[in-house]
Amino acid sequence: MSSKYVYLFEEGHSDMRLVLGGKGANLAEMCRIGLPVPPGFTITTEACNDYLAAGNKLSEEVTNQAFTALKVIEEQTGKNFGDKNNPLLVSVRSGAAVSMPGMMDTILNLGLNDESVKGLAELTGDTRFAYDCYRRFIQMFSNVVLEIDHSLFDEIVEKYKRKLSLIFDYEIPASELIGIIEEYKEIVQSEKDFSFPQDVKEQLIMAIEAVFSSWNNQRAIVYRKLNKIDDNLGTAVTVQSMAFGNMGEDCGTGVAFTRNPSDGTKELYGEFLVNAQGEDVVAGIRTPTPISKLQKELPDVYEQFIDTCEKLENHYRDMQDIEFTVEKGRLYMLQTRNGKRTTKAAVKIAVDMFNEGIISKEEALLRVDPEQIDQLLHRQIDTSVKLEPIAKGLPASPGAASGKVIFCADDAEKLGELGERIVLVRSETTPDDIHGIIHAQGVLTSRGGMTSHAAVVARGMGKPCVCGCETIKINMPAKEFTVNGIVVKEGDILTIDGATGNVMVGEVPMIEPTLSDDFEILLNWANEIKTVAVRANADSPQDALKAKEFGAEGIGLCRTEHMFMALDRLPIVQDMILAETLMEREAALAKLLPVQKEDFYGILKAMAPAPVTIRLLDPPLHEFLPDHTSLIIEVENLKNNNTNPDKLYAKQDLLNKMNNLAENNPMLGHRGCRLGITYPEIYRMQARAIFEAMVLLKQENINPFAEIEIPLVMDIKEFSLLKAEIDEVYNEVKAESNQELDFVIGTMVELPRACLTADEIATEAEFFSFGTNDLTQTTLGFSRDDAEGKFIPIYLDKKIILDNPFAVLDQVGVGSLMKIAVEKARQIKPNFLIGICGEHGGEPSSIEFCHRIGLNYVSCSPYRIPIARLAVAQAAVKNKA
Amino acid sequence: MSSKYVYLFEEGHSDMRLVLGGKGANLAEMCRIGLPVPPGFTITTEACNDYLAAGNKLSEEVTNQAFTALKVIEEQTGKNFGDKNNPLLVSVRSGAAVSMPGMMDTILNLGLNDESVKGLAELTGDTRFAYDCYRRFIQMFSNVVLEIDHSLFDEIVEKYKRKLSLIFDYEIPASELIGIIEEYKEIVQSEKDFSFPQDVKEQLIMAIEAVFSSWNNQRAIVYRKLNKIDDNLGTAVTVQSMAFGNMGEDCGTGVAFTRNPSDGTKELYGEFLVNAQGEDVVAGIRTPTPISKLQKELPDVYEQFIDTCEKLENHYRDMQDIEFTVEKGRLYMLQTRNGKRTTKAAVKIAVDMFNEGIISKEEALLRVDPEQIDQLLHRQIDTSVKLEPIAKGLPASPGAASGKVIFCADDAEKLGELGERIVLVRSETTPDDIHGIIHAQGVLTSRGGMTSHAAVVARGMGKPCVCGCETIKINMPAKEFTVNGIVVKEGDILTIDGATGNVMVGEVPMIEPTLSDDFEILLNWANEIKTVAVRANADSPQDALKAKEFGAEGIGLCRTEHMFMALDRLPIVQDMILAETLMEREAALAKLLPVQKEDFYGILKAMAPAPVTIRLLDPPLHEFLPDHTSLIIEVENLKNNNTNPDKLYAKQDLLNKMNNLAENNPMLGHRGCRLGITYPEIYRMQARAIFEAMVLLKQENINPFAEIEIPLVMDIKEFSLLKAEIDEVYNEVKAESNQELDFVIGTMVELPRACLTADEIATEAEFFSFGTNDLTQTTLGFSRDDAEGKFIPIYLDKKIILDNPFAVLDQVGVGSLMKIAVEKARQIKPNFLIGICGEHGGEPSSIEFCHRIGLNYVSCSPYRIPIARLAVAQAAVKNKA
Repeated sequence: MSSKYVYLFEEGHSDMRLVLGGKGANLAEMCRIGLPVPPGFTITTEACNDYLAAGNKLSEEVTNQAFTALKVIEEQTGKNFGDKNNPLLVSVRSGAAVSMPGMMDTILNLGLNDESVKGLAELTGDTRFAYDCYRRFIQMFSNVVLEIDHSLFDEIVEKYKRKLSLIFDYEIPASELIGIIEEYKEIVQSEKDFSFPQDVKEQLIMAIEAVFSSWNNQRAIVYRKLNKIDDNLGTAVTVQSMAFGNMGEDCGTGVAFTRNPSDGTKELYGEFLVNAQGEDVVAGIRTPTPISKLQKELPDVYEQFIDTCEKLENHYRDMQDIEFTVEKGRLYMLQTRNGKRTTKAAVKIAVDMFNEGIISKEEALLRVDPEQIDQLLHRQIDTSVKLEPIAKGLPASPGAASGKVIFCADDAEKLGELGERIVLVRSETTPDDIHGIIHAQGVLTSRGGMTSHAAVVARGMGKPCVCGCETIKINMPAKEFTVNGIVVKEGDILTIDGATGNVMVGEVPMIEPTLSDDFEILLNWANEIKTVAVRANADSPQDALKAKEFGAEGIGLCRTEHMFMALDRLPIVQDMILAETLMEREAALAKLLPVQKEDFYGILKAMAPAPVTIRLLDPPLHEFLPDHTSLIIEVENLKNNNTNPDKLYAKQDLLNKMNNLAENNPMLGHRGCRLGITYPEIYRMQARAIFEAMVLLKQENINPFAEIEIPLVMDIKEFSLLKAEIDEVYNEVKAESNQELDFVIGTMVELPRACLTADEIATEAEFFSFGTNDLTQTTLGFSRDDAEGKFIPIYLDKKIILDNPFAVLDQVGVGSLMKIAVEKARQIKPNFLIGICGEHGGEPSSIEFCHRIGLNYVSCSPYRIPIARLAVAQAAVKNKA
Repeated sequence: MSSKYVYLFEEGHSDMRLVLGGKGANLAEMCRIGLPVPPGFTITTEACNDYLAAGNKLSEEVTNQAFTALKVIEEQTGKNFGDKNNPLLVSVRSGAAVSMPGMMDTILNLGLNDESVKGLAELTGDTRFAYDCYRRFIQMFSNVVLEIDHSLFDEIVEKYKRKLSLIFDYEIPASELIGIIEEYKEIVQSEKDFSFPQDVKEQLIMAIEAVFSSWNNQRAIVYRKLNKIDDNLGTAVTVQSMAFGNMGEDCGTGVAFTRNPSDGTKELYGEFLVNAQGEDVVAGIRTPTPISKLQKELPDVYEQFIDTCEKLENHYRDMQDIEFTVEKGRLYMLQTRNGKRTTKAAVKIAVDMFNEGIISKEEALLRVDPEQIDQLLHRQIDTSVKLEPIAKGLPASPGAASGKVIFCADDAEKLGELGERIVLVRSETTPDDIHGIIHAQGVLTSRGGMTSHAAVVARGMGKPCVCGCETIKINMPAKEFTVNGIVVKEGDILTIDGATGNVMVGEVPMIEPTLSDDFEILLNWANEIKTVAVRANADSPQDALKAKEFGAEGIGLCRTEHMFMALDRLPIVQDMILAETLMEREAALAKLLPVQKEDFYGILKAMAPAPVTIRLLDPPLHEFLPDHTSLIIEVENLKNNNTNPDKLYAKQDLLNKMNNLAENNPMLGHRGCRLGITYPEIYRMQARAIFEAMVLLKQENINPFAEIEIPLVMDIKEFSLLKAEIDEVYNEVKAESNQELDFVIGTMVELPRACLTADEIATEAEFFSFGTNDLTQTTLGFSRDDAEGKFIPIYLDKKIILDNPFAVLDQVGVGSLMKIAVEKARQIKPNFLIGICGEHGGEPSSIEFCHRIGLNYVSCSPYRIPIARLAVAQAAVKNKA
């Protein structure tokens, strides 16, 4: 049995989007609920796929089914397709399951030819109308189906208007239109070597084929790639009898939203153009009037339209974006779909619709895209302004910033303290630049990826940052950078957009972040419904307080190494690293103890009694040392100058020590708990700092709760050894202070082997936190630093991967290791606490995965907490049993 | 019910090693099969563990059971423990399940005191004998149990001998022995503040406790660590009635092997000492006579001994190492165990015993340790000579080499061609040094790990290599190196041992490799029994031929990048890498095509019709470029000199390009199939070279079979894309040559994600080969280059890992990913071909794991093929259902 390739509107419904496309399904649905829809039918996406698979060949079966359906339309309208006296005209539109600009344009008035145009003229008593329709049809068909450049047609119209001294197209009289039509047909003949098709069936088949072919046009392909739409969905074709908005003053066409798509206000929002077809609205030749004017001009129609809008909104239970036509005082609905809206509007509409009893809280939560919430939390470039970026880097930390270009951290600090707005521009930043970043509005670097120092620090501070902008060439001595011939000097105003990576010269209009009451309401509903907790990654008391403000239920990751990066501490840290004896190292650690203790005191206090996961030192030690290459160059220059032997000796000594510490693959090297195993004194110092801070808090009647986290564990034995060290320190502190403390010891699960032996590790560990950044690196064998700049863009381009796996969790690979780990650990301890603290903890689709595999919490940077709160709630709604 | 802690000999048997220790179990077994064994009993290892767990406290239960057993011994011997007239004397010995030197020494003659010594004298009619026994007992007990330094006792004996002008201990008359005993007892009193225990029960309990405690003495702990023996096994104590070899000329003591442990000849091999106790043999004061002399001196005993040896060998079905005592013409067996032997002897004994019908082929195969076979394949340092290494590096490629120290590859080549024996010494080697390595006997480097260039190249060539010998400081301009104050100049003779990493000055005696006929026989049996094939990792036709000679059944890994390293090719490879346009790159590739084709031609020809797995280019491209640091320094110097702007420009340009290629973690970077995806033209060139070589061979009526391997795949889509490229090239070559070729396309599985999605990848791949070196790196998060020098030694030391995971497969972590991959792939294709080509493919325990999870082949370096052949056969025997 052959497939059903064609559905009359009355045979379909709104759930058939995949088959009929969004447009077709909604027309069918409107028809089904009794709204005035011009009769029509839809040819399925399956027919499209078959057409493409057959090498762009339409099967006879599809053609037959289409013409059978057309017969029904003829009966319903009482008109006949191609009839000389009473011709049925149709529109042909493409419609994919997902709204997709870039596909083929609409063709209106199909069914006209040299004969039927006369019938139309007679029937309507309006010759000008008929020939204008025909003219429009030839131009559209030639342009869209025959792919003839539309300027050729425009020139002719212009020529006639010049000749007749007319301004508007609609002023051209019928008699002249006939001449224009003749010239149009000559263009077709000369461009395509055949006559403009007079056979209306041929017209229809050609139009259908053109729609199907347009699925693979360049614009459509690019759009699908950008929006991650499956290439195999295909498009449907909707063929609908024409309703004419251009038959007089009691006719017209319009578009409307059932609510204000910009701010969400409950009001009809749209435009109407009298005596016009849809294309006239788009063309912008005449200015449409606001929809409210319709009330005066066509009060009956307006009433009917208001009712229809309400009916549609209630039926679809969402704000609708509607196209309609009025033909001789009669309303026809041409399209409805859920309307696009700003995030602000989305929030308001969701909350209002719950209050109006249209949707449930769960549905309201699903109505806002968590990713878009970012807009509400950061200053944004005003997207209504056309931008001319001079360069594009990696979007490393969201938000936009403008300010004077400054190339040096010290200057940035000085000017920043004077109240100047600064954009710090560096080839890359190091811990030495922190004070500059603090005083800058934003940071731009020419090197480094999404995890570079600048990116990590900026995200932590919630400051905009664009990284790895390799096209800009910085000339440090000259205090300027050049890009594509443009020279930007120190003091020039620059704007960066950390959400897109764009870099612009000058000030750019921005939109300030706004957090509405509705948004608060929505997030409170999220809290009622979500089952997974949301914690923050925060490394300082300030970050912890910011996180709490955004609703964090604890700290899921406090990276102690970021505390080491502070300018006043770094020299001590370097002493510790370069120590050649245990005694030297312990002396440096003794100096770090009080500062670490102060940090922990602040963070634990900010969150108490909520838990704070403190990760012991993780990165390879040479990350805290000066840049290796610069040092090599410095030593060479000192050798060549030969004027300062003492300095040369000192630098050479440092270089030798750094050479010893250097690693080929630091990501897989001497870091994480391996540092704790080889230098137990470091972890002992950190444990003591935590415990002593907790004792202080206890004395202030505050009840802190620490989750001490051992990083990069691959075997239970590492964990046991270090747990014993920490317990020993605890017993010392307990004896000294006579104070019991609440803490647990767990591990960051970030290696495949830890997942595979999670049952063993769980026997001693008291919690797990997935470090999915590292777990992604090891599972896929991707060095994030290297991959994001080099082959990930190519992999995305070739569709080997659909997302950057460091942004969106690889559920198939990394996810299956996580599942293994969760199952194994809970076999041992059914209520075992498990969270995630990699950057995926703030990404909605990854969060949903975490919900599904049963994690207890997700942890993300403070500024992503609202996103995560909404996302965990959505996950709970979507996955309700 | 309490445990049974004590077993009479007649209650035990040889399978109770874990409970009774090796010694106790074998004494019980000898007793069981009716051999003459002095009665005794064994206290279990469980008693030892309980003793240690209780904080070195012997429980009453154990003591009671011991004295109950002692009662039985009294009945069996008709003597009584501590009896004044007819005293029972016993020996007390330690005995763990695994033979373990370093534990407590034997105590003989326990049960003597001031009273019973008189009874013994009367009973034996030999006062001197009795007091000599007592003297020996006090000395032994004081030394071993009371831990009094034995020199204190030796001094007294020496004093008496001086006084009496005697030479040998046994010349001291009884009367003087009594004086010595008194002085001995005074030493105990003054050292320990108590009298030498006269209560024989107290003596016994103290001795048992001393044995148990000795389980944790320093020597024992170190030995267990070195030999990876479980600390929780514990030791048993065997208490046995004394047989006296020192009661006259019809007495004696001896040790013997049932076959020659050095070469395996079937002959009794041992020594005998008349009128002596066991300790006299060890002390070496008197020279023992060969065991054959016993035939003349005590013919009856000799006959009985010969019978007993045969009986024991047949019973244990292995060569035995026996201790015995003759007391007044009566033979007593004191110990038997499987004898240690050289590898050469092990091979001969195994083959002989099969021929004699004692053991099966399967058992014969199990009798040789595959790891030891290495000895037979490489020149070895003669271990009988005491060595004084000046330094120790990593044992990177086995075998020993001596020669003149040369610091430069060109010189090495020149001198090597003149027939000089050379050891090439470099800080590290690069592709530029290959010609020097070829002409050297061996290579020594001061930097780099087991996978450094020098190590990989040397192993491939079967040349000895010691790597990463960081203590030697090379002074290139002076052509010398220093280590611990020793200066070694160019031309000095140096010896390196690639099996141990030792470096010695001068020539050192060596043993040449010998491959006996017996060895061939054994390997043929291995082939009959093994079910897993053995292939070789080989990158050149020479290696392939060598591999075939050793019995390789194919090439499991041909690394095409090693072909790129050759001196004449490297500049072309560098052109390819630094190409800035596709055209430039294709021009370089066109030059590489004929040389690659030649390589493939040779290797495929050498192995045809056996399969050759050819891995497409894998390492990050910057591995083929000059050293980065050196280039930075060169550029700096050129800048400072400012005399050669053209050179500076060229070098700066090269540096810029290299900076672009540089990666933070090259192991996880732009390498493997990622190169193929980004530069398809490289893989296309390689595929063409393979196919064109095969066409040539076909024309010579040779039938090559290629398995084209795509490295570092993490997703089916990578594989599909590249497979399509290769198939396209095949179709081109087929069309050009009109020749069909036999080949398959598969992938190297070396990433966790590939294992986890093996079912998907297997839908398109035609084989898998586990690259367990990389899989270990990603699963454990260990960079081999960094870990082996830095934290792996510490991890081994702290017993976090029991073996270097790059040498011995981590079955728990890496192994479970392999199992997942095998199961998933075979779900899709039940007969799917899967092998292993990481270095684990040549390591016996890893090979057994591969057998168990159902791999089709293991692949290893040519020189390890005999090891692998034996190991796969052993795996088959051990895992027979």
